[in-house]
Amino acid sequence: MRIGLIIEYDGKDFFGWQIQPEKRTVQGLLTDALSSLLKEKITLIGSGRTDSGVHARNQTAHFEYAGNFPIERLALAVNTLLPADVRVKKSFVASDDFHAQYSAKKKTYSYRYYISKISRPLYDPFAAQIPYDPEAFDLLTAQNAVRDLLGAHDFLGFSSTGREVADSRRTIYSASLTYENELLVLTLTGNGFLYNMVRIIAGTVAEIGLRRLPESAIRAVLETKNRNLAGKTYPPQGLTLEEVEYV
Amino acid sequence: MRIGLIIEYDGKDFFGWQIQPEKRTVQGLLTDALSSLLKEKITLIGSGRTDSGVHARNQTAHFEYAGNFPIERLALAVNTLLPADVRVKKSFVASDDFHAQYSAKKKTYSYRYYISKISRPLYDPFAAQIPYDPEAFDLLTAQNAVRDLLGAHDFLGFSSTGREVADSRRTIYSASLTYENELLVLTLTGNGFLYNMVRIIAGTVAEIGLRRLPESAIRAVLETKNRNLAGKTYPPQGLTLEEVEYV
Repeated sequence: MRIGLIIEYDGKDFFGWQIQPEKRTVQGLLTDALSSLLKEKITLIGSGRTDSGVHARNQTAHFEYAGNFPIERLALAVNTLLPADVRVKKSFVASDDFHAQYSAKKKTYSYRYYISKISRPLYDPFAAQIPYDPEAFDLLTAQNAVRDLLGAHDFLGFSSTGREVADSRRTIYSASLTYENELLVLTLTGNGFLYNMVRIIAGTVAEIGLRRLPESAIRAVLETKNRNLAGKTYPPQGLTLEEVEYV
Repeated sequence: MRIGLIIEYDGKDFFGWQIQPEKRTVQGLLTDALSSLLKEKITLIGSGRTDSGVHARNQTAHFEYAGNFPIERLALAVNTLLPADVRVKKSFVASDDFHAQYSAKKKTYSYRYYISKISRPLYDPFAAQIPYDPEAFDLLTAQNAVRDLLGAHDFLGFSSTGREVADSRRTIYSASLTYENELLVLTLTGNGFLYNMVRIIAGTVAEIGLRRLPESAIRAVLETKNRNLAGKTYPPQGLTLEEVEYV
């Protein structure tokens, strides 16, 4: 029987999703808690890894289970074995061919920042600082530039070196940048994302808004695949995996 | 010369505003940092105390200073001596009769909660859990009840015993309850608030929404001044001092 999970976590105190010896990881804690609850060694497969410090509102995962623990009670039960910064929000019986990673059709990430010369204790846990006056940020220009992400492109220039992928083409279905209640929120939905892609895009969008990069910078990076034309990789605490879609 | 400050803090790791021996308090850290920066013993007076765990987006304070440190640079300079969970957002020269507490005309507090049987790691730092299904919460009824707070009333029934006040009448100028992006936000502006008043009102509003208290509960508490007719005191992490107004 294949079991699906939807998981939320505050990434601050985790060394990311992926299980690693001696490190506090989401996959590691969940594997231990599920194995302990179900009294068998569980192999948990996530939709993808998230880096150290990155948050998730609806991470997904699956595992095989042949026992008779009632699955509708699994989320509540496993949460009693987990620390407060990670929660299983939902557990369900999935079809036998459901795969948290390979069946995923779309992912949505958000990146939050605030624009202030002085850091903001109430935003720091879930947003990155753009250390300038808000007046220095040209929202309309940044919003125009974000539209250049839409569609199918080779995003190689928006990825960090060190992780090879066979194909760096990805499709972005929606891209928006909003500014409300002092928070600038970049939201991207795509069929997949390269390593550090959202954080490099976030840095590029910030620098376009600050007019430290031209409005055409995103187009230039897509055309040239040159990482050096993009902005810097923005910090992990602004990034949240919002949703993984399967249909 | 009287100096005014606007201060933001994440209350999680503070034993509240008020200075106490051997405790990590906002007033204590600010007093030490200002005294060290200005090389004289500073006496800092806040708009009022906030309890352990309560946040502030715009707390205000003042102190007397006769030296010649440039005041427009004070905020940036003192922040270098403070931990990241407290920041002076603004420093300014105030008039000689400005008093952070006694000159305050209005205060605005917000109280944030989320409605979910499963706790939510991404909301826990700044909101309290209402541990029910969202469908169990009747927003319209709770919103109607919140309007009963408006105007001048004796709020004695919405205060914790143990702190005597000569006069427990207060005026509420605005009161709203909104539900957006999974967060329920109660916002109250008044000429002053009794001890634990917002947290008891927050608990009462939550229980009215859950239909565990009648829609008339706020009126009943105001009329009878009976604390037992109100809801429980909700936890501090949902409460934020949003603003103190002086005109």
